[in-house]
Amino acid sequence: MATESKGEFELLRRLLPTLGRRADLLIPPGDDMAELSWTAPSLLVATDMLMDGVDFRPGEHTWAQIGRKAMDVNLSDCAAMAVVPVAALCSLALNDELSMDAALQLADAIRARGETFNCPLIGGDTNSWASPTVINVTVLARSDGSEPPIRRDGARPGDRIFLSGPVGGSILGRHIDVQPRVALALDVNRSLHPHAMIDISDGLAIDLYRILDASRCGAVLNDAALAAAIHPDARRLANTDGTTARDHALYDGEDFELIIVCPASVGADATARLGLIEIGVTCAQRGCWIDAGGGRREVERRGWEHFQ
Amino acid sequence: MATESKGEFELLRRLLPTLGRRADLLIPPGDDMAELSWTAPSLLVATDMLMDGVDFRPGEHTWAQIGRKAMDVNLSDCAAMAVVPVAALCSLALNDELSMDAALQLADAIRARGETFNCPLIGGDTNSWASPTVINVTVLARSDGSEPPIRRDGARPGDRIFLSGPVGGSILGRHIDVQPRVALALDVNRSLHPHAMIDISDGLAIDLYRILDASRCGAVLNDAALAAAIHPDARRLANTDGTTARDHALYDGEDFELIIVCPASVGADATARLGLIEIGVTCAQRGCWIDAGGGRREVERRGWEHFQ
Repeated sequence: MATESKGEFELLRRLLPTLGRRADLLIPPGDDMAELSWTAPSLLVATDMLMDGVDFRPGEHTWAQIGRKAMDVNLSDCAAMAVVPVAALCSLALNDELSMDAALQLADAIRARGETFNCPLIGGDTNSWASPTVINVTVLARSDGSEPPIRRDGARPGDRIFLSGPVGGSILGRHIDVQPRVALALDVNRSLHPHAMIDISDGLAIDLYRILDASRCGAVLNDAALAAAIHPDARRLANTDGTTARDHALYDGEDFELIIVCPASVGADATARLGLIEIGVTCAQRGCWIDAGGGRREVERRGWEHFQ
Repeated sequence: MATESKGEFELLRRLLPTLGRRADLLIPPGDDMAELSWTAPSLLVATDMLMDGVDFRPGEHTWAQIGRKAMDVNLSDCAAMAVVPVAALCSLALNDELSMDAALQLADAIRARGETFNCPLIGGDTNSWASPTVINVTVLARSDGSEPPIRRDGARPGDRIFLSGPVGGSILGRHIDVQPRVALALDVNRSLHPHAMIDISDGLAIDLYRILDASRCGAVLNDAALAAAIHPDARRLANTDGTTARDHALYDGEDFELIIVCPASVGADATARLGLIEIGVTCAQRGCWIDAGGGRREVERRGWEHFQ
């Protein structure tokens, strides 16, 4: 752990008492490592780094929104695997000119968002420097006990493809106001036993291709069904920027909805109760197409390219 | 996970096959989360962020050295707790102008150094941006089964204070060529049952104060004993910069030796076998002093301030 400047020391002094309030934390934050009681037979772990100017823009959003999002993208990874978030760690490289108030807002939002999902911060590393702010969050999770985690490589030809909600146009606001689908994912896992799942961070097209590549199969999306998966924000954007609403749905990022690939036998009752939107089927031939009745066109292998 | 640029994609394509070669890895890197079998009743976790220009300087060291150090500071956290490293994750924000070769050197050094300590990389996040490079490593560890982790808050008045090796002047080379004391720490834990331990990242003085503050006690260091703990590098530096060798030993950072606080009853045979250097005793009065026979002077509460 690096030497704290006076500012960092003050930040840590204010933060540490707000962390580590949980019974299974055997060694709380403040030592060289935190120790957490662990009864599950396995653990899941992921890490995501967000950079000022690439993943967020302080001029456009509050530090509280940015902090919340840094935790949300990790919680969404837990949703993608259908596992239960347990605890998180956060490293900060704070720009020198950030005020103590802004730094506290950021750190407290990360902490508070984790706690909303029973995923408290149990450690971290606080630094400052002259370059733009960097936020790294690592999340620890466990399977829910009754079902294994859902990987992205288990799709088989003939499976049915669903979305947890409509997509596209997240830039109008949902990209910073993320709703990680953790609870839904656990329900989906118990109810539907999906073959594969992923969260849409970079776009429906590119993230579906990730499932298809890992599973060595292809997919045909139904054009009419896809229309039902277009978010009103995608239609609103399409009215102003010349890109079609359908392309916004396919290629915009940061929706953080789930792509859920299920055995063909799943019941309509269950998918309806879960509010899933069916958009197509997997096939043996590698690739991804949209079938609009009159013929197929290929889905492009591209996604969201940050703010750059 | 962010959309990869072509360079990042290429980096991931080359890195992924080198990761995840271990039997207890149930879901290897490449999915939204990695899954690791976990049989210990608890887990320990820490995270450290290194920033270009603050914690390392690419002009002075190779990317392989920098990558190795990014892993070493985390392994040293494991040594500080006397626990066994199990796996690590790494997030990178790579400066745009870094070549693919340099990025591969960096990432491969992180991976290789972890594997030397049976601590393979099982996940990460690769990004690029226009600002200086940031490296974040998170390490997972377990206790060695027979002994609990050693915290920094367990020192009691009358304990004896040891170092795992001489300190000071690490800037002459040892600061980039770190030897994490993981094996020694496990042996120390089994042999001496220490009350408190920490690794010297920011300096003997400031890191000892961290033990004393957490343990709510003080310490008196023996001036003659301290002389035996001064590294030759500290003496070499003292010859050129006007700071005494003793002050280099007290206030230089990045030695990554251990401060080990033991019950008074520990045997001389054991501490000699482990190569420990005794430097003083703890006391009830809060503070830290050096006793040079003729009187006490207070140890300053300051440490290494990076390159800034």
